[in-house]
Amino acid sequence: MALLLDNQFKDLPPDKAIDTKLFLEAVSHIPQFFDCLGSNVFSVIKSDINGNIMKIRAVYMKDPAKYVTLQDIVEAERETHAAEWPKVGATLALMWLKRGLRFIQILLQSLADGEREENNPNLIRVNITRAYEQALKRYHGWIVQKIFHVALHAAPYKSDFLKALSKGEEVKEEDCLANVRQFLVNYTATVDAIYEMYTNLKAELDYTV
Amino acid sequence: MALLLDNQFKDLPPDKAIDTKLFLEAVSHIPQFFDCLGSNVFSVIKSDINGNIMKIRAVYMKDPAKYVTLQDIVEAERETHAAEWPKVGATLALMWLKRGLRFIQILLQSLADGEREENNPNLIRVNITRAYEQALKRYHGWIVQKIFHVALHAAPYKSDFLKALSKGEEVKEEDCLANVRQFLVNYTATVDAIYEMYTNLKAELDYTV
Ligand SMILES: CCCCCCCCCCCCC/C=C/[C@@H](O)[C@H](CO[C@@H]1O[C@H](CO)[C@H](O)[C@H](OS(=O)(=O)O)[C@H]1O)NC(=O)CCCCCCCCCCC
Ligand SMILES: CCCCCCCCCCCCC/C=C/[C@@H](O)[C@H](CO[C@@H]1O[C@H](CO)[C@H](O)[C@H](OS(=O)(=O)O)[C@H]1O)NC(=O)CCCCCCCCCCC
Repeated sequence: MALLLDNQFKDLPPDKAIDTKLFLEAVSHIPQFFDCLGSNVFSVIKSDINGNIMKIRAVYMKDPAKYVTLQDIVEAERETHAAEWPKVGATLALMWLKRGLRFIQILLQSLADGEREENNPNLIRVNITRAYEQALKRYHGWIVQKIFHVALHAAPYKSDFLKALSKGEEVKEEDCLANVRQFLVNYTATVDAIYEMYTNLKAELDYTV
Repeated sequence: MALLLDNQFKDLPPDKAIDTKLFLEAVSHIPQFFDCLGSNVFSVIKSDINGNIMKIRAVYMKDPAKYVTLQDIVEAERETHAAEWPKVGATLALMWLKRGLRFIQILLQSLADGEREENNPNLIRVNITRAYEQALKRYHGWIVQKIFHVALHAAPYKSDFLKALSKGEEVKEEDCLANVRQFLVNYTATVDAIYEMYTNLKAELDYTV
């Protein structure tokens, strides 16, 4: 579980403000997560998420002192891009990034909870499908939904996936899942806080792609 | 047809050497081509091709005087990356880019030749499928091939596609296709020359993704 545990998300402060710099550092390791799925079909998703992160980082870099928290960025863009906001800039990038992060969260949680197909316990399609349905499906039109179902055939076996998450080391399934549970604590809190912020600022959109 | 005619490819010299700078300038307008397909499903392909171009440009920029022609780049990489070559650097990026360029070439040629479904003359699926089969299918595993078939449903009507190619101006189909034919002259010669170079240098690979 080195991959995830080496790059833990930080504890949130009581007001749940997310430090931009620490967040960017932590999410910079997320795109590699899609390599653990083992097929180059997923490199497309990796690029999409990578693009989101680069967009947020580019805005942050313009004025790190002004954009200390993620909320600082979203609020500043609400002022400067009033006409197009929230479908603009880092606000749009973070809107989509949080959905990808939620997808990963639910996938890992479902594995940690032991959810499985009784007849195919070494498949993770049921976990991926749950994550997709909760995090992304409603933002995808029927063509992308259908592409998802085809892409599901490229999903790895659970054993291979857990091995990849552990940087290629053979670890016991239970040890790996214990690490996943630990990773999920701050990770889930961070993703929840971003969703809450989008709700509070009315920054959420529900168009489909 | 402004979009294409504004950005014509140059005549090749008799030795068919392709000037890197002029090539990069001409292909920089190619990613927009995928916007003409009208669905954001294709933005994924746009990014892939964009990535290829950026990779080639990055190598060129390191030493423009050394990399005057595309062949200079491919030959230099054969020396410096002997172990991995040709699956490396700008050689790999151009290997894939030429396939995307060939896809576009065959699609446009098929439209210019008047190939159509008699029962659905305003659809371009038959043209896209021909281009896919000749340029890309053999480099795609069954999952990506299946995704192609799903994505085909997002293809635009011919009338909308030709309008987009003409930068949104309503033009007569015949006028637009006359422009396409003119664009194809140097474009096809350039793409052919890249394929020939890959064959001559034994730089072609046939792995699938
Ligand atoms: C040659 C044959 C091929 C033919 C064509 C094939 C086309 C295939 C297309 C499939 C779609 C791939 C997934 C990408 C979808 C993306 O379209 C969406 C929206 O993407 C957002 O769009 C915004 C504008 O609306 C901005 O550009 C955002 O960019 S911005 O930074 O500029 O603001 C961008 O992220 N992202 C998403 O839906 C996010 C997806 C996240 C993770 C998903 C995990 C799923 C795992 C599945 C496992 C089974
Ligand atoms: C959330 C749900 C979604 C779930 C996941 C969805 C996944 C969808 C995946 C679909 C595939 C999209 C097309 C991209 C395919 C790419 O994989 C390939 C190879 O791409 C190359 O790979 C190399 C390494 O092997 C290098 O990285 C190259 O990069 S390098 O520059 O670094 O060297 C890179 O271009 N390019 C291609 O096949 C090229 C495609 C070109 C144009 C195709 C036109 C088709 C038009 C179709 C119209 C109907």
